[in-house]
Amino acid sequence: MQVIHQDDRLSLRLGGDALLDHAPGAPAFFVGRGRERMEMYRGNFEIEDYLESREALGHLTVSEAKAGLRLELRRHATDEVQLTLRLVELEDGVRLETLAVAEGINRFWLRLAAQGAERVWGGGEQMSYFDLRGRHFPLWTSEPGVGRDKSTYVTWQSDVVNRAGGDYYHTNYPQPTFISSRRYFCHLETSHYADFDFRHAEFHELQVWGLPSTILLREAPTFLALVEKISATFGRQPPLPDWVHNGVILGLKRGQAHAEAKLAEALASDMAVSALWCEDWAGVRETSFGTRLFWDWRWQPERYPSLDRLIGELRERDVRFLGYVNPYLCVDGSLFPEAEARGYLATDGQGQTAIVDFGEFDCGVVDFTNEAACAWFKDAILRREMLDFGLSGWMADFGEYLPVDVSLHNGVSAKVEHNRWPVRWARVNAEAIAEAGLTEEVTFFMRAGYSGVQGHCPLLWAGDQSVDFSHHDGLVTVICAALSSGLMGNAFHHSDIGGYTSLFGNTRDAELFMRWAEMAAFTPVMRTHESNRPTENVQWFDDPQVAAHLARMSRLYVHLAPYLKVLVAEGSERGIPVQRPLFLHFEDDAEGYAIQDQYLLGPDLLVAPVHEAGRHDWSVYLPAGVEWVHPWSGERHAGGGRVTVAAPCGEPPVFYRADSQWAGLFADLASRA
Amino acid sequence: MQVIHQDDRLSLRLGGDALLDHAPGAPAFFVGRGRERMEMYRGNFEIEDYLESREALGHLTVSEAKAGLRLELRRHATDEVQLTLRLVELEDGVRLETLAVAEGINRFWLRLAAQGAERVWGGGEQMSYFDLRGRHFPLWTSEPGVGRDKSTYVTWQSDVVNRAGGDYYHTNYPQPTFISSRRYFCHLETSHYADFDFRHAEFHELQVWGLPSTILLREAPTFLALVEKISATFGRQPPLPDWVHNGVILGLKRGQAHAEAKLAEALASDMAVSALWCEDWAGVRETSFGTRLFWDWRWQPERYPSLDRLIGELRERDVRFLGYVNPYLCVDGSLFPEAEARGYLATDGQGQTAIVDFGEFDCGVVDFTNEAACAWFKDAILRREMLDFGLSGWMADFGEYLPVDVSLHNGVSAKVEHNRWPVRWARVNAEAIAEAGLTEEVTFFMRAGYSGVQGHCPLLWAGDQSVDFSHHDGLVTVICAALSSGLMGNAFHHSDIGGYTSLFGNTRDAELFMRWAEMAAFTPVMRTHESNRPTENVQWFDDPQVAAHLARMSRLYVHLAPYLKVLVAEGSERGIPVQRPLFLHFEDDAEGYAIQDQYLLGPDLLVAPVHEAGRHDWSVYLPAGVEWVHPWSGERHAGGGRVTVAAPCGEPPVFYRADSQWAGLFADLASRA
Repeated sequence: MQVIHQDDRLSLRLGGDALLDHAPGAPAFFVGRGRERMEMYRGNFEIEDYLESREALGHLTVSEAKAGLRLELRRHATDEVQLTLRLVELEDGVRLETLAVAEGINRFWLRLAAQGAERVWGGGEQMSYFDLRGRHFPLWTSEPGVGRDKSTYVTWQSDVVNRAGGDYYHTNYPQPTFISSRRYFCHLETSHYADFDFRHAEFHELQVWGLPSTILLREAPTFLALVEKISATFGRQPPLPDWVHNGVILGLKRGQAHAEAKLAEALASDMAVSALWCEDWAGVRETSFGTRLFWDWRWQPERYPSLDRLIGELRERDVRFLGYVNPYLCVDGSLFPEAEARGYLATDGQGQTAIVDFGEFDCGVVDFTNEAACAWFKDAILRREMLDFGLSGWMADFGEYLPVDVSLHNGVSAKVEHNRWPVRWARVNAEAIAEAGLTEEVTFFMRAGYSGVQGHCPLLWAGDQSVDFSHHDGLVTVICAALSSGLMGNAFHHSDIGGYTSLFGNTRDAELFMRWAEMAAFTPVMRTHESNRPTENVQWFDDPQVAAHLARMSRLYVHLAPYLKVLVAEGSERGIPVQRPLFLHFEDDAEGYAIQDQYLLGPDLLVAPVHEAGRHDWSVYLPAGVEWVHPWSGERHAGGGRVTVAAPCGEPPVFYRADSQWAGLFADLASRA
Repeated sequence: MQVIHQDDRLSLRLGGDALLDHAPGAPAFFVGRGRERMEMYRGNFEIEDYLESREALGHLTVSEAKAGLRLELRRHATDEVQLTLRLVELEDGVRLETLAVAEGINRFWLRLAAQGAERVWGGGEQMSYFDLRGRHFPLWTSEPGVGRDKSTYVTWQSDVVNRAGGDYYHTNYPQPTFISSRRYFCHLETSHYADFDFRHAEFHELQVWGLPSTILLREAPTFLALVEKISATFGRQPPLPDWVHNGVILGLKRGQAHAEAKLAEALASDMAVSALWCEDWAGVRETSFGTRLFWDWRWQPERYPSLDRLIGELRERDVRFLGYVNPYLCVDGSLFPEAEARGYLATDGQGQTAIVDFGEFDCGVVDFTNEAACAWFKDAILRREMLDFGLSGWMADFGEYLPVDVSLHNGVSAKVEHNRWPVRWARVNAEAIAEAGLTEEVTFFMRAGYSGVQGHCPLLWAGDQSVDFSHHDGLVTVICAALSSGLMGNAFHHSDIGGYTSLFGNTRDAELFMRWAEMAAFTPVMRTHESNRPTENVQWFDDPQVAAHLARMSRLYVHLAPYLKVLVAEGSERGIPVQRPLFLHFEDDAEGYAIQDQYLLGPDLLVAPVHEAGRHDWSVYLPAGVEWVHPWSGERHAGGGRVTVAAPCGEPPVFYRADSQWAGLFADLASRA
């Protein structure tokens, strides 16, 4: 990257082309003032800005300063300085640091030069669009929406009944970072509400409702190297515990007897099972959304009478037991009074404990800006109630719901802390496990995230898909989620097999569950979910055909373990995601750049999940330059075009490189299934 | 109104309170630059602004100048002048005139001081909210939307299938004019896209995507006087032709035999009929929306074999015949080639005739910026094909669809002409009638409008309600439309009895039709409509009970003619609307200000249409200070509170002032029904 400045002009160039061009008549920096309206309803936000001013900082003065260039930006020559930045040249790019800003400014826009054919990816974990070009992306952690497509019945009803329909950009895990096909990444260090706008032909415009402390622009010769740098920036995950490779994690949530019975059925059907995940280990309550968990994070013997004993017994059979936790405490639980008495809960404007409605029940919010509250949560809950109890992991749910009107211990506005909350939540979990010395043994999985979550959260899950094949909330969105979050340095991703959200008559059938299981067998972790309405949705244990299919997929997954373990090690050491967009290994294949419903599982396996109902075959794009083998038929195909293969349930469309060192393992897939 | 200026401050005061306050730290004027995206789909617009700058004009210089004060506005003291205005003091207010503006500016904002309890009304013809406070109102003539409420099935399906669901602010007739409860009105003379924002506690913010040529702020001691001034500003309507008072105008559109047969049935059932309105007089075509008209504006003998003779025969029986016209010509009609050959149609960027999709058929747009095209339309169509043919009036439909990307004869951007189009269209119709010397004899009715339409369009109709009781698109919206447009100086308003739009399984029943007829009997004009899907919706002639009810309502309407004619004369002479909000005559009754589902018909009749299904009684607010009589029961009620009265079909909740000079006429309503 080249930095050129002359008089009142500044130019960053990448490979000879403009990356940032600032001149008086064509400024790159804008500041202003706005008054936002933010309203939360159960994790869904209505956000609106009333923009009072937006002014171009057309006048630039550049001077040499300690450790870089000092940029003073004014609206015009006779104006006071509005914004002072330091530009630090790095080996592979630049870092812009905000040194000072004029009073009252709370909006910032940066324009980067765009190119016609350029693609951009990232923005955290995106569910609808992998390539962000042509759209804008508000970056604010929230519920991702149910349906996420205003043309569908489920979305419409979710909007009308729960204000929860959502849109293409809603995500549990936003991040103000993107990768360009020009082989650079851009990161804004900030937790303010942001909106990255990639709709313009000549520029990308990055908006922040505050000033980013730094802006990072770094290049790399390859996308792999770029992802490695991103991962180094935000932190890396520990390797997944070895036990995950033993099979599927069975999500069961109807009490102990049910869990034990279903495990027995699974093992009887030759299913490879690594763990039971019983999110109801702490109890349940009934609501109109369905049976909800009781948010008081300790074993509830009523539902699991001898869980303490069961966990030990399972461990002997090499089956782990996983639980569930989130950062809220229900007011009618045992932990809430303790947290409240200690002053560990966020407060409202009047100094009273802030109470948040989670859908027919109320909770307090543990204030993770208070280190004492973090220590208490780690020790009193995660350590004593969960790790010491023998849990090998848990879903660390939520993180997106910090209300913007609570008062926090550190005195920072909840609007500014909101996006950071998933990272704080991840850190509490990771530290509790690390402090117990169990990082290599215990895992947890989150849906929420933000810049830096990578360094704390060992495993993402794709959140709450609808139990269907819909474009914006169904099975296929998991792939987009894995690819986008993967480029941000989240190496390990997985999803609820069968999806989660079943509302307004939308229920899953056997086909959906089976197609989902097929995809999951080719991801880092396999885990089932009973959904929010277990009795209305197909479960593997209700249908012998589905159970047999899941068992078969679990065996494929275990068969791939040697390969997966190498990928997991690579993910942990270098930050390269296990699931990769095609261009990560096929940079010269232009067609692959547009594909978001296929992925590479490591360098050698191409996975193209069937994500439509009623299909018996499937069209797959095979990257150019190598030969691909279809393990079920043994057929070989030259890359560089589409092939249509038979894709009955049980033969997910996957291909391996003929020249892979793992070709033998892959060739055996058919015989092991 | 008081104008105070000192140094860099300017203040307009009304009754001692600020109306406009401009000071360096609290400016009232803002300018900027934006890039709008406007996309039209069959009269529905998607409009989005990308705001590049918005800058406060904090620095003001005031100097005495010819005919007023010269205001020079800068962003700061050392800046170039961005905006120069002239402030002219009027007897009752001020006029601000734009003299000059800096290059590149295409956005303008004006802040007026708001008060806590202040209400504002107007914005043209609004269908959802009479009091505009608490919301913003984009002002752009368009289809008003089908359903207009994102929570309803009809709206959702209209959005999904036709992009046509709309929202609360969509209207055929916007106008950048409002009345404040502080007894002033504000008008911005412009046809640019505008958005009036009444959401803020301390100010109203008026946004224009261009510079208004003038800003008018005028006060009056009473609302009646204020409306009279508004009417004097925008023009007044001629009196309605006397024949409208003869009874209901029957909307029939299934050809001549049907029209003649239904007229005979109507007269046999003692219905008072003033006219037949046969919009299919020029022929029809079939589309998926239903049977549409054939947009070639001349008698089509196939559907009306002897219409020429029939019109004369009807006239002998004192029944008029009305037709239909709109400003577009279908490409497969006889008039399109002539208009095209003469160069009277709007063109696209390449000089070809612009073709607009109206829903499965294409049309040319007659270019009313070309006086020769206007003269041709007036003479070749309105005069020769319609007036000379014997029509006594017509629906002058549309006017909202000028595409923003066509090229016009006068060289002005279609984005700027778009809002003016309804006024140009109204003028063509009014002039054709006036040039034939028939203004007192022939009428036409429009749904589209904009500032100035008042001087040309003699009669509004409320557009295309859904055939239901819904809050945002049903019967009740007609009242809001009449009241808001009435305050803008449109004295005469009416609606399609029974509503119009029947889509997605939404059809009208007998009750809706009857309740609508009850309301229509207490408006300036009664007119039925068969709807867009005549055979799927209840018609009076399909149900003897409905026919008898409509006949009864037509007799009530005729009975009121002596009173109505006085109101019509008053409307024509002073611009006072026939249908009036309660506060127009009861300024001291605070409660009446909040009511938008009742109205005064002239000074003496209070009308509270039943606008819910299944009701047998109805709660009515009676303004304070007078005694009110319920004509059906003869019961008297003191004003100043709510009463609940029996309201079976046939006894619409109306009340008259006991002290009215028309009390005898009103008392006879019951016996005449």
